[in-house]
Formats: sequence, C-alpha cells, structure tokens
Amino acid sequence: MNDAIRKIVERIGPLDRSALAEARDRLDSLTKPPGSLGRLEDLAAQIYAVQGKSPIAADPALVVVAAGDHGVTARGVSPFPQEVTRQMVANFLSGGAAVSAMCREVGVDLMVVDAGCAGGEFAEHEKLLQAKIAEGAADISRGPAMNREQCARALALGAGMADRAQAGGVRSVALGEMGIGNTTSAAALYCALFGLDPREICGPGTGLDREGVALKARIVGEALEANAGAAASGDGFEILASLGGYEIAVLAGLALGAAANDLLVFVDGYIATAAFACAWRVKPEAKGYAIFAHTSAEPGHAKALEAMNAKPLLDLGMRLGEGTGAVLAIQLARQACAIFNNMATFEQAGVSGK
Amino acid sequence: MNDAIRKIVERIGPLDRSALAEARDRLDSLTKPPGSLGRLEDLAAQIYAVQGKSPIAADPALVVVAAGDHGVTARGVSPFPQEVTRQMVANFLSGGAAVSAMCREVGVDLMVVDAGCAGGEFAEHEKLLQAKIAEGAADISRGPAMNREQCARALALGAGMADRAQAGGVRSVALGEMGIGNTTSAAALYCALFGLDPREICGPGTGLDREGVALKARIVGEALEANAGAAASGDGFEILASLGGYEIAVLAGLALGAAANDLLVFVDGYIATAAFACAWRVKPEAKGYAIFAHTSAEPGHAKALEAMNAKPLLDLGMRLGEGTGAVLAIQLARQACAIFNNMATFEQAGVSGK
Repeated sequence: MNDAIRKIVERIGPLDRSALAEARDRLDSLTKPPGSLGRLEDLAAQIYAVQGKSPIAADPALVVVAAGDHGVTARGVSPFPQEVTRQMVANFLSGGAAVSAMCREVGVDLMVVDAGCAGGEFAEHEKLLQAKIAEGAADISRGPAMNREQCARALALGAGMADRAQAGGVRSVALGEMGIGNTTSAAALYCALFGLDPREICGPGTGLDREGVALKARIVGEALEANAGAAASGDGFEILASLGGYEIAVLAGLALGAAANDLLVFVDGYIATAAFACAWRVKPEAKGYAIFAHTSAEPGHAKALEAMNAKPLLDLGMRLGEGTGAVLAIQLARQACAIFNNMATFEQAGVSGK
Repeated sequence: MNDAIRKIVERIGPLDRSALAEARDRLDSLTKPPGSLGRLEDLAAQIYAVQGKSPIAADPALVVVAAGDHGVTARGVSPFPQEVTRQMVANFLSGGAAVSAMCREVGVDLMVVDAGCAGGEFAEHEKLLQAKIAEGAADISRGPAMNREQCARALALGAGMADRAQAGGVRSVALGEMGIGNTTSAAALYCALFGLDPREICGPGTGLDREGVALKARIVGEALEANAGAAASGDGFEILASLGGYEIAVLAGLALGAAANDLLVFVDGYIATAAFACAWRVKPEAKGYAIFAHTSAEPGHAKALEAMNAKPLLDLGMRLGEGTGAVLAIQLARQACAIFNNMATFEQAGVSGK
C-alpha cells in the first residue's frame, strides 16, 4: 500500500452512533408501529448516519462496472471464453446487458471502467473510462495476479472515481463487475481472507458442472500455494494484489474512496463482495458505509458474508454480477429514504398512539 | 357464495404452460448465463404467462388499501385503539402513511376503500371509495364476522374494483389493508383454512407483549369454537364470512376479480395473505396470478405461506401491512419486465456462448 492509498484510508471514520440514535427517534415518531418496516428502517438509519443530515438520499447513484481479465481462465475455470469480457463491455455500453436495462429502468447512471481487459483499447464511449493497467491479471495459480505497484494503481483508480463522483454530487456508488474467470479469483480471496477451504467456497460460477467446480477448487488451492506468503499475511492489500484482479482492485479502491467521501457503497454479489472484503480488511470501518445487496446463488457467498457479519437485503437466487443485485438494493434504499423523509409523524397526522 | 361471485370464479383459468416455456426460451437467449437472474427470471416468465404477449409490464399498477374495523378489538387484541383505523384512512389519503410515501416514490397509484370502518362516512376524496357495508365486522369470538350476504357484497365490491382497474388499463393490483384487530382475524382464518393451532400462528401484531399474544391466541381459539361449523367446512367462502372482516373480504374479491381479468395480484403480508388464502381455497388457480411480496416478521406468516407452497420474494422483517411490502415487489417486477423486454440476445450483442 502506498502513501496515497493510506491517506484515503485514514479519512474513513466510524459511523456516528448518536446520528443512528437520532434516526431511530425520528423513525419511531412516524405513523407505524415502531420497527414495523424492518430492514427498511435499519437502512434509513444507516443512511442518515452516513449523510448526517435530512433529507436523506440514495440518489444520485452511480453503478460502476469494472471489467478485467484473468490469466487463470487458461486453466479452464469458466465455460465462457475470455473474449466474452470484452464483448460484454460493448454490451454494457450499448444497453443490452442486464445491468444496463435495469439501470435505465430506474434512472441510475452506469459507468464502465476497463481496468485490465485483454485485447487492447476499446473504441471511445462517454460511459467508458479507459484505464487499462495491464492486458489481464496474471495467472494466480502460478504467482501473483498483479505486482504491488499495479494493485496500488488500480486502487487509486477506483478511489479517484469515488472522489469525482462525490464532486459531481453523487451520494451512492454500486460495485459491479465483469471478468471471465473472476469467481475463481474471488474464491481465492475469500480463502485467504477468512481461512476458508476452496471446496466450501467454490461454485459453478457462470455454469460449471460438478467436475468443473472440483477443478476450480483445485486451482484455487494451487493459487493459495503459489501465493502462500501473501495468503498467510492476513494483509488486505497483499492478498488483493496476489489473488485479485484489476476489476476487483478497482472496486476495492472505489469502496474505500466512497467511504472516505461519505458515500453509500452498494455491494453486489460474489465478486463485488470479495472486492469489498479486501477493503474491509484494510479498514473495517468501511463496513458502516456498505449496503450488502443480496446473497448470491453462488455457494460460498453466504459464508463470506457471515465472516464479515454482513446481512444482505435480498436473496433472489441471483448469480449474474454486473451490479444487478445492487440496482435492486438501490431501489430499496430509495424507499427507506422516502419513508424517513416523507412519512407523517403521529402528531402531524393526528393518529393515536398505543 | 352467490351466482355473481361464482361467475367471476369460473373465469379464472390455469396459467398457460406453453407460455411459461416460451418465456424460458426467451430468457435463455439473453446475454447472461441461463437462470443467473434467479427469481427475477421466474417472475418474468410468470408475467408473460399471465399476459400472453410481449412486452410484459407490471404497470400501470394499483395498490388497493381496504380498510375495515373488527368487533374483536373490544377483547383487547391490539395495543392501538379502534379509532386508529379511521385516522389511518385519513393519513393514507393525505399522503403521510408509509404506503402513501412509497407509492409516490415510485409512481404507483393508491386507492383506499372503506369496506367497513366504524364511525360513519368519511369526507369525500378522489382516492377514497366509500362502500361501507357495516360499521365494522362483528366480534368473531362470539359469532360470525359477517353474514353471507354481507360477505358476498364485500367480495363483489373487490371484484368490481378489479373489473374497473382492468377497463382502465391497469395490469397489476396489490392487496393492502388497514384494520385495527385484523391480525386476530387473519390468524383465525389461517387456523380454519390450514388446520393450524392458534398458538403457532398468533404473534404480536402491532406490538403486543407475550401476555397479549397469549390472550390473542385464546381469543382466536374462542373464535374457532364460536364458528365451529364454518371452520370445519373447509369452504373458503364460509370461513371468510365467519372469521374474516370487510377489508379482508374485499381483498379476496379483488384477488379473484384480478385473476379473472388476467391482472397480476401482488400479495402483501400477514393479512393480505389471509385474504388471498380464502380466494385460493375458492379457486386454487388464482395462485398463478399471485406474486407473494414478502414474509412478514409476524410469526405464523411463513407457515401460512408454506401451506399454499407460496414463496415470497422478500424477507425484510416488515410487519406493517398497508401494502408496503407489495410496493417493493412491484419494483422487483418492473425489473423482471425490463430484463425480459430490453436485454439483448447473445446473437444481437455478438456475445459468445459457452
């Protein structure tokens, strides 16, 4: 970790407990039995504690889809060929991908960042940030995904996006990703961060069969051996550099930068959570800014969330990534804000209490 | 059940299996691993099967909040006084209630219907349908909530709202309710419909303590004895008339009418599900049109859902009612439609398959 990253991390403070209590008082004054809106109330209180003032807002929200390739795909860990990463970047930009359709539906901005896709530069597009650090991460089963300088650059790239988002008035960022092979990288990160076994954390990803999952678990085991020093260090940055990937490091940087800027961080599924977990290891207080969107159908995600004591909002059997679950969570957060800001109190409405 | 209701029920057909299969084919052609959007894909397929054509849509959607009082409140089953039902009707209309704020946030129409509130007529309001059948349901712990003619009128009222909604271009209705004491009525309905024990189905409602819950369970037991013939009949209409309430019967009629008109039926929480369960007992095929929004924090709701093999979308610890959970489910359904209608296929996007 370099000084620039360290400075960002130092800006992240703990959530304001007294603001949480203030929010609870406000919520209990509204025309409903106390606590009867469940997680929506928790969400409203968290958002108030992050933003420190009323009205609270999830908008404007920005979904960042970070894309990057993975050398480990050469080992056959995904049923889809590597070129799909590039093809999907084009699909995000032309609006045909799931996350594109979902963002459009609810008026959320989408930004794609090429952090490390193979195959050279893309054509220019206003929604694409071209910031390729390398033509894909190196094969983690044989050595580190990135060197430390590359990883620091990727973190700074993400953190810089958060700074610019904040300057532009954005209140929330969502972590989305695309990268053929990146469930393998995410699984390796979980094992190293939380001491989990590859066999309990590896799943079918985009659609491996049982044999494919077993192969993936073996390769994650090889990756942990090839990067044994980093894995044993317990250090978020070292683990990220060794077992992550460019898109994952960008999202970790985005999460840290967002927390430093008092933005909400919507964490999507299996891979986005792995990126967040690296940020969390670097600075546990970042969790106060995080809203965990959903539990992925990818087995192992629930275990990783549990290791951070993170309770996602949704459990819809989704396992696409891209930030699709995060968009749904943004919709829930909007309603949490609407309740907090716009409901009448018992006194205002002349409704009798208990 | 009278002939008018019987005619509505006869119009409800089973979901079109071949349309479900068609929808699956379309979903599998879109740029994502098959099935990777989980429940959103199931939802899209169900909506396509209900609507029979593309593009599919949840909108325009109408949340109906049916309000009614319950004589059983005299037995001390709610910590809130009965006048809160009326006060909340005013709050729905002036926009201060949770469901009002949530509908406004996402552009969903809200309609309130006075099916049986105590305290006389309300002032006129464009969003209020005044159709009071009685000044509250009778005390179910002493006899039937309604007579059969009153229950049939309430069903017809709800079914008529569905007819008018359909004629006005609405594609979805949501079942919302307000009625102090109505968790007691809903609990009694569940016991009668599904042979459950009052002690396993009664919960704190708006905020009873342990003693209050025990009292409520005893009173539900008394209601089942006082209406033993209806409870033993297994007949959805008889059970509804004996143990329901006006707002619950209106919602049961709305569910049947909506299904008869090929509208989606968003089923909210503990009480709305009890209303739907009566409709389901009358015509099990109505379930094909139903989208179960969430599992209530009210203990017993999960058991009742299980009895219908119904799998709600959300589990957010909510227990307010009013249709609040249903509004969130409408938001999910909109995204299911967006995916189905607007995503690119692998071919269109030039993305490689497996």
